Amino acid sequence: MAERIETEVAVIGAGLAGLSAARELRRLGVDVVVVEARDRVGGRTLNEPIGDGEIIELGGQWVGPTQDHALQLIADLGLETFPTWNTGTNIFERGGRVRTYDGTIPKVNPVSLAEVGVALKRLNRMAEKIDVDRPWEQTELASWDGETFATWMRRNTRTGAARDMLRLAIEAVWAAEPEDVSLLHALFYIRSAGSLDLLLGTEGGAQDSRVVGGTQLICERMAAELGERVHLDRPVRRIRWEEMPGDVPAGLPELGPHSVTVEADELTVAARAAVVALPPALAGRLEYDPVLPAMRDGLTQRMVQGTVVKCHAIYPEPFWRADGLSGQATSADGPVSVTFDNSPPGGKPGVLLAFLEGNAAREATDLLPEERQQIVLDSLIRLFGPKAAAPERYVDKAWAADEYARGCYGGYLPTGSWLMYGEALRTPVGPIHWAGAETATRWAGYMDGAITSGIRAATEIANGKG
Amino acid sequence: MAERIETEVAVIGAGLAGLSAARELRRLGVDVVVVEARDRVGGRTLNEPIGDGEIIELGGQWVGPTQDHALQLIADLGLETFPTWNTGTNIFERGGRVRTYDGTIPKVNPVSLAEVGVALKRLNRMAEKIDVDRPWEQTELASWDGETFATWMRRNTRTGAARDMLRLAIEAVWAAEPEDVSLLHALFYIRSAGSLDLLLGTEGGAQDSRVVGGTQLICERMAAELGERVHLDRPVRRIRWEEMPGDVPAGLPELGPHSVTVEADELTVAARAAVVALPPALAGRLEYDPVLPAMRDGLTQRMVQGTVVKCHAIYPEPFWRADGLSGQATSADGPVSVTFDNSPPGGKPGVLLAFLEGNAAREATDLLPEERQQIVLDSLIRLFGPKAAAPERYVDKAWAADEYARGCYGGYLPTGSWLMYGEALRTPVGPIHWAGAETATRWAGYMDGAITSGIRAATEIANGKG
Repeated sequence: MAERIETEVAVIGAGLAGLSAARELRRLGVDVVVVEARDRVGGRTLNEPIGDGEIIELGGQWVGPTQDHALQLIADLGLETFPTWNTGTNIFERGGRVRTYDGTIPKVNPVSLAEVGVALKRLNRMAEKIDVDRPWEQTELASWDGETFATWMRRNTRTGAARDMLRLAIEAVWAAEPEDVSLLHALFYIRSAGSLDLLLGTEGGAQDSRVVGGTQLICERMAAELGERVHLDRPVRRIRWEEMPGDVPAGLPELGPHSVTVEADELTVAARAAVVALPPALAGRLEYDPVLPAMRDGLTQRMVQGTVVKCHAIYPEPFWRADGLSGQATSADGPVSVTFDNSPPGGKPGVLLAFLEGNAAREATDLLPEERQQIVLDSLIRLFGPKAAAPERYVDKAWAADEYARGCYGGYLPTGSWLMYGEALRTPVGPIHWAGAETATRWAGYMDGAITSGIRAATEIANGKG
Repeated sequence: MAERIETEVAVIGAGLAGLSAARELRRLGVDVVVVEARDRVGGRTLNEPIGDGEIIELGGQWVGPTQDHALQLIADLGLETFPTWNTGTNIFERGGRVRTYDGTIPKVNPVSLAEVGVALKRLNRMAEKIDVDRPWEQTELASWDGETFATWMRRNTRTGAARDMLRLAIEAVWAAEPEDVSLLHALFYIRSAGSLDLLLGTEGGAQDSRVVGGTQLICERMAAELGERVHLDRPVRRIRWEEMPGDVPAGLPELGPHSVTVEADELTVAARAAVVALPPALAGRLEYDPVLPAMRDGLTQRMVQGTVVKCHAIYPEPFWRADGLSGQATSADGPVSVTFDNSPPGGKPGVLLAFLEGNAAREATDLLPEERQQIVLDSLIRLFGPKAAAPERYVDKAWAADEYARGCYGGYLPTGSWLMYGEALRTPVGPIHWAGAETATRWAGYMDGAITSGIRAATEIANGKG
């Protein structure tokens, strides 16, 4: 027999969005219960211990300037940040050639560099037209909504090197290919972050800083505040709700004229409102009674999870630093597309972070772990030399294979979707409110967006919209 | 306590695909159980009685030449077909002007007509390059995979009339917009049907004929043959399977080294193999243990259901026939995009069939029924005159609101999906085989494709692939 709990608001998902919603609701004096499918909190943030008290992060890890809510929350929880290692020369690989460069601009031919520069400027300028709060009202954007980033790229660049560099940028931000995302989705994201430079940058950009001890601590500390209100190992299967015009049950202040029942394995939560803090693709897999409006369901059919494998090769020392390298590499040859020096603040052990993104990740996710390790190390050897061949340890996480993520970094919209279905991202359905990084308007898809989305959903409920 | 049944193969879904699979398995001497979520068989075929022994069809209804499996099955089940009403002049509406025309070519300006002619010819020629059995191996098609039909259309037509006519063609076939489908998906479909002319044609095309008594009879008669093996009102929630290297359970011949448990509400079926005969978007919403490979899950995230509202206005007589009209109209002004004379074989009552497709259907699905009726009748009045204003009865079905369809006609793939995820459409996962019109290679998305997909899945299992 399932345990049954009565509360005011049921929050589904104990990632950054869900826990931020619960924390904000508590701050507003509302009672909450958080129901989490996994045996841990953190969602798409995840620490993995590597000995000597050090950890690596298998999920989201960076924060940067203008991500004010994330930085504030980190400080509020007594956590600290440290700068991403950014000293030394960078590496760019293309066409079998590995070249080093200083600063942010790889050494490719001047024509391609100029093309990329013009393209980035154009994208930033186009992005300024987006109203991030309601792009679906901007019917003048239909043409951007109806084409892929790939076709825009074909029209706006001529050289292979320029196209490769733009492809790498798309892969780095969405863990998807230019063929997957609509031009409008790319522009929405750029606008939501502020600029492409902020999205792509290390120092001063979205990859500026890291959290001492790992980002999963953010969720763990929020969960600790919430205590027994957080229930792990309870996958939610069904959400039932109804109008409740009659008497409000005793002990439940009137949040709205609804009752909600959240049915999880071995746990049922009765509440007055719910926050679903899952990626839309997964939120669409729950059963709803009454069934979701077609618009909301259609959004969940369309919003696809990006695909990334986040890989770590751990060495006794960050040997590349002695070679004058920053550990940051970008490769158009793949399968590893981007690397970073992900060593702990003390610089020991040496950790190389390598991403498989988009198609490379799709092809690698269903491989055997040892096969995946080999293709990653092959890339690292090409980029950083033979010392990269024998890490003390190799750890990766293929997020598309994770039943409760089914992809990372987050959801993206293919063509034809933003204008028609975008509004359903946040529109509550009866007493059900939607949170998650995908629903954010500022730093959508990032930890900062996840946090603000939870606060926004909590505010909706506390303001009596649900 | 849920009823528990042991069988050889569990079939999930009692539409054309599932029942065809079950029928073929029975023919091959294999024991089956069919588990259906709805309280009826038929899937996306559905009869609605309208009195005097007549019916209208709220779902799939047409068959045509080269749909050999559908025509054979209809004959085998003792059913008959009759030609779609195709006598009289047709109507084309654009820019507020309603014009009649004979034959298949609307009277628009000659430049636009020429453009459309060239475009259709190009599409047919491009489609010939597609290997419908394994397009994912044709990496040379990456550019078609990476662009929408919309951008192809922009490049290949200049006049608004030509673009409108192509848009109407896309809407008519996929119940989606040119912005939604990849160019490769459109070409795959064209190749799978044989040609665009076959897809779009009435006489001699995919809209050639209808089934006397309605297409749901096909499923009802197959279900009658299967008798108590078909279980209605049993939504499947979970499929568990495992390797079974040990002894084969008594009474179950060795179909493959697996056991499968299909868990539905109030029913558990234990079997040696399963056929999931649901649209991919819905198949992805079941729980699988072990979890699906990322490629299969990714396919279900990407394959979106089209959106259609199929509307019928029923009049005492088919009054348009007396006016010399065929009842077939096409409107670029919408929201109704296409109409047909859908009267029963005897010509009484008069039934006008009207489709809302793609964006028009998306906007109409969550409306109140009376609002939807009004916008449809407004279209019909413009097209067929004031007599259309007062039907005896109006009946529609918004398939995107149906929990167990979540759209019609079927699933389509957006950009970037066919090459990477197409192979997962039919690749079995352990003992789980995939059927459904979306998995067909010939007449994909049509009733004929649904039927052949079921036979193909049954054959896979009987041949010991599962």
